[in-house]
Amino acid sequence: MMKTAPQVSIREVGLRDGLQSIAHTMPTAQKLQWLHAAYAAGQREIEVGSFVPARLLPQLADTADLVAAALQLPDLVTSVLVPNLKGAQAALDSGAHAMLLPISASHAHSLANLRRTPQEAVAELARVCAARDAAGSQCRIEVGLSTAFGCTLQGAVDEAEVLRLLQACLDAGADQVGLADTVGYADPLQVQRLFEKGLSVAGDRLVCGHFHDTRGLGLANVYAAWQAGIRRFDACLGGIGGCPHAPGASGNVATEDVAYLFASMGVTTGLDFDALLALRAQLSKWLPGVDMHGSIARAGLPKTMREAA
Amino acid sequence: MMKTAPQVSIREVGLRDGLQSIAHTMPTAQKLQWLHAAYAAGQREIEVGSFVPARLLPQLADTADLVAAALQLPDLVTSVLVPNLKGAQAALDSGAHAMLLPISASHAHSLANLRRTPQEAVAELARVCAARDAAGSQCRIEVGLSTAFGCTLQGAVDEAEVLRLLQACLDAGADQVGLADTVGYADPLQVQRLFEKGLSVAGDRLVCGHFHDTRGLGLANVYAAWQAGIRRFDACLGGIGGCPHAPGASGNVATEDVAYLFASMGVTTGLDFDALLALRAQLSKWLPGVDMHGSIARAGLPKTMREAA
Repeated sequence: MMKTAPQVSIREVGLRDGLQSIAHTMPTAQKLQWLHAAYAAGQREIEVGSFVPARLLPQLADTADLVAAALQLPDLVTSVLVPNLKGAQAALDSGAHAMLLPISASHAHSLANLRRTPQEAVAELARVCAARDAAGSQCRIEVGLSTAFGCTLQGAVDEAEVLRLLQACLDAGADQVGLADTVGYADPLQVQRLFEKGLSVAGDRLVCGHFHDTRGLGLANVYAAWQAGIRRFDACLGGIGGCPHAPGASGNVATEDVAYLFASMGVTTGLDFDALLALRAQLSKWLPGVDMHGSIARAGLPKTMREAA
Repeated sequence: MMKTAPQVSIREVGLRDGLQSIAHTMPTAQKLQWLHAAYAAGQREIEVGSFVPARLLPQLADTADLVAAALQLPDLVTSVLVPNLKGAQAALDSGAHAMLLPISASHAHSLANLRRTPQEAVAELARVCAARDAAGSQCRIEVGLSTAFGCTLQGAVDEAEVLRLLQACLDAGADQVGLADTVGYADPLQVQRLFEKGLSVAGDRLVCGHFHDTRGLGLANVYAAWQAGIRRFDACLGGIGGCPHAPGASGNVATEDVAYLFASMGVTTGLDFDALLALRAQLSKWLPGVDMHGSIARAGLPKTMREAA
């Protein structure tokens, strides 16, 4: 049990977003070690995998096993990604606390990534919500609105279309929504503006920011979203990950760097740096040849924070 | 001549802050090529060197030659760093448009870097201003208040002491002041708070932010200072540089990444990306074995900006 509630929550998505873009399949035993170590470091929401066909993403074929293990950890929100109704049914069967359904704001990215238009994805979301309700499940349904800040395929994405889809997702029954800079195109002014507009549409149901550090603005964008009022962020330990259908998109913001950003500002995340950095070192051994990103692992905490600890 | 005035100015400090921390001495001919290419890329204020004894920094022994060359370039503000009155006299003799005198807010850093207390440094500043006035020179005198956000030697630096020194520098005759995160300790909330307080003390004479990217927050800090109202930033092409007396301090924010941050927000800097990136590639050839930092050189501009160009 944590003594004080964190002011910002960092959802670890490395086991899903990180591993899905790496050709090497991490053995289930290592994933379970990662899960337990992340929990021990203070992480209280973890996206443990994705219910997609194993032929498409063999790296994530053991998601049900990960969910079962995660459900044993007290106070942990066990989250999974689902691409469609079939995946959502598997998520419901698994007992996961939360499922994330990605919907692309970019028409071109939606077709490439999900093989349907954004409007068809919203219709599928409505079916997912109906299935959840029919099952009498309490599983939280969250939409991650991807390519909300631009798209490598389509280029610009209209803000009005993002806001329209946000409203459509809520109307279709989503409990929560988030905005994702899937390909690292966002800038801090745009982030602040779009989250502020999004909050005026979705209120406290717009809860999450998902940023990639492709062009060095990842942490500035996290800061801008936090300024707009967002208090949950996705991140991958070591900044691994990306989207296989978004050419040029590299690493998520690094969990340890996002944690440092907030710690440096005196905003608590509940995370233990020594534990996070030890796990990061272990992760780099589990994933030989995979580039780790991020700054704080290299530079170390400043003297001012070490003295305060 | 530029067609429209840039909304933000990026002062290139690579020829001084960058090169002073690199053991290899770049030949004057290469520095002159760098100077001319930076000017061609749109840079209109360049810190070309430092008037320090050549036995201390042989890398910068040709500063007078660089000043003479820079003075030939129309509309370029030619700036030099001076550690003391003797250096200031050399700057006045050179005809440079502006001199930057660093004064450490950290007592410990001041003793290590300048071998005097901050108060003694302010007294030296008064002598520099008197010498400038006695010479009938128009040379702009700017103080860079270093370690303003914390210090690797001393740890925390009191904000009240920073503000006191800011006022003392203005009282001693400085035309302009800036705040520097010499060792990469600053966080965006602190940056916004201290610049806002500084602006209430110094008004439009607080003009510059100098940030290092040691812990990944460099661009978030630039953004925070810009939000506070600052419109000039120091940067080094390729993020080279650091302070030899501040252990652990690594690279300045990269010129090309700061330029990208502002361009992404629609804020003009007058800089040409293709020219900057070509020069960066050349710089990495001139400095074999020196790590280049920054993201935009690796990732490239987003499709949205390439289409807009």
